[in-house]
Amino acid sequence: MTTDIASDIAQQRARAKEWFESLRDRICAEIETLERDAPQALFPGTPATFTFKPWTRKTGSGGGVGGFLSGGRLFEKIGIHTSSANGKLSPEMARAMPGSGAQLDYVSTSISLIMHPRSPRVPTVHMNTRFLATSVGWFGGGADLTPMLPAQRTPDAPDTVTFHDAMRAACDAHDPGYYPKFKAWADDYFFLPHRGVARGVGGIFYDQLNSGDFEKDFAFTRDVGAAFLDIYPRIVRTRMQEAWTDEERAQQLETRGLYVEFNLLYDKGTMFGLQTGGNTETIMSSMPPMVSWT
Amino acid sequence: MTTDIASDIAQQRARAKEWFESLRDRICAEIETLERDAPQALFPGTPATFTFKPWTRKTGSGGGVGGFLSGGRLFEKIGIHTSSANGKLSPEMARAMPGSGAQLDYVSTSISLIMHPRSPRVPTVHMNTRFLATSVGWFGGGADLTPMLPAQRTPDAPDTVTFHDAMRAACDAHDPGYYPKFKAWADDYFFLPHRGVARGVGGIFYDQLNSGDFEKDFAFTRDVGAAFLDIYPRIVRTRMQEAWTDEERAQQLETRGLYVEFNLLYDKGTMFGLQTGGNTETIMSSMPPMVSWT
Repeated sequence: MTTDIASDIAQQRARAKEWFESLRDRICAEIETLERDAPQALFPGTPATFTFKPWTRKTGSGGGVGGFLSGGRLFEKIGIHTSSANGKLSPEMARAMPGSGAQLDYVSTSISLIMHPRSPRVPTVHMNTRFLATSVGWFGGGADLTPMLPAQRTPDAPDTVTFHDAMRAACDAHDPGYYPKFKAWADDYFFLPHRGVARGVGGIFYDQLNSGDFEKDFAFTRDVGAAFLDIYPRIVRTRMQEAWTDEERAQQLETRGLYVEFNLLYDKGTMFGLQTGGNTETIMSSMPPMVSWT
Repeated sequence: MTTDIASDIAQQRARAKEWFESLRDRICAEIETLERDAPQALFPGTPATFTFKPWTRKTGSGGGVGGFLSGGRLFEKIGIHTSSANGKLSPEMARAMPGSGAQLDYVSTSISLIMHPRSPRVPTVHMNTRFLATSVGWFGGGADLTPMLPAQRTPDAPDTVTFHDAMRAACDAHDPGYYPKFKAWADDYFFLPHRGVARGVGGIFYDQLNSGDFEKDFAFTRDVGAAFLDIYPRIVRTRMQEAWTDEERAQQLETRGLYVEFNLLYDKGTMFGLQTGGNTETIMSSMPPMVSWT
């Protein structure tokens, strides 16, 4: 397939792809360490490791690598995926994107992950960053935390504060306006209007970030990934020391229902992926391993 | 709220509403009988009964009654709802509907149900019929069966044949063209393109049915409801005699995931309800009580 994508954008995409894949490797190594370190008394069994499955697109060209972990001691299920595509936008999708004009070619590269811990005391987390380009390129993404127990799902709960502090620091290093704007965007985005509740305690969300300086925007996106890699394992290390009750487990299975509802009803990545020939197995790996709606 | 709905349509709606509510009462009585009759050895505990919660719309006027059963011996969860509304369509919704023109007022009345049995040997079922009118009125709805085990999910499995025979008979009594058309419509509608699989073994689906003769269309819709009331309990009575394995239970929880994906990604009733001020508790009561995505 030939495209009209300019060579500078092709190079930017190559650099972003390399970063997303190296970030994936570092996150997976950290998770496998946590699997080994989780206290045996609370998390019996054998530490799990990731399995990686490459796939190629049925439409356009490109593909990705799906990273899967399931049935771990500490993590019940994780999907962590990188993908890169060259494709054509539908006219409808092109209208929603900058710089498309008459040109429907796009390139993309991304990392996305969702982690479902076994313990209801350990929060679920999502992180995704991506580079997308038509005749111009931009970054988007974010990270948000979803604690499972009501006492943890407040703005001043310790994990909420820790997570937001880390995201604020990543933002402030680049632009003092980023954190307030991107936190508000996450609050707005990760919300279930039919329930009138947020999915979790938020984080940051940004899209179509193009300051005119690729290096600056790329550095910010790298820092979001690095902040995630630092803070989430620290939260997990604290909470994995705590025992939990059957009642808390039941609460976790209910709260996971919000995750399912959000991802299938509202998540743009899920819709975009399913509509543009993405890989169903990787997209649907965000679904929790066990969920209840009582 | 005043509307431009003509008095003949108001009377048609009143009659359809009365039928849907009486059908609901007969179905609930039959289910409560099944709860009592299920063999104690396979289904320990106390037979469950329905709880009914009336609700009123936040937008427009009208409301409904949510019927809920959960934690039964035979049925893990059931939602059976009637609702009637007077409201205004958004211009976007009006474009998709007959007879709206400049008039955005609509009236509706409906029954909908989803039943999640505890045993993986007993199929899940959905039935919905409705009357909707702008300046003209029409019926829509259908019923489809979702067996949980691979051996049951074939066109020639006994429950598939029994269920389709009942729906065919209801159709054939009114028009020999109905069953082939409405079966194909169900096959097309209850399909998950991202997985390339059907939700279950189908049934019938129809919409915007207006032959020009209200009495004829109403009689057909009544017969679809009556056919459901006859056939589903008969299937349940047979399958509730069968023991099941842990492996079959695990398979059931996986197959229920298809139900969740369909209802949240594709079901028009879910979307219509959430977008038009429907009742979230009743709409979301279609979600299975326990689901897994391994």
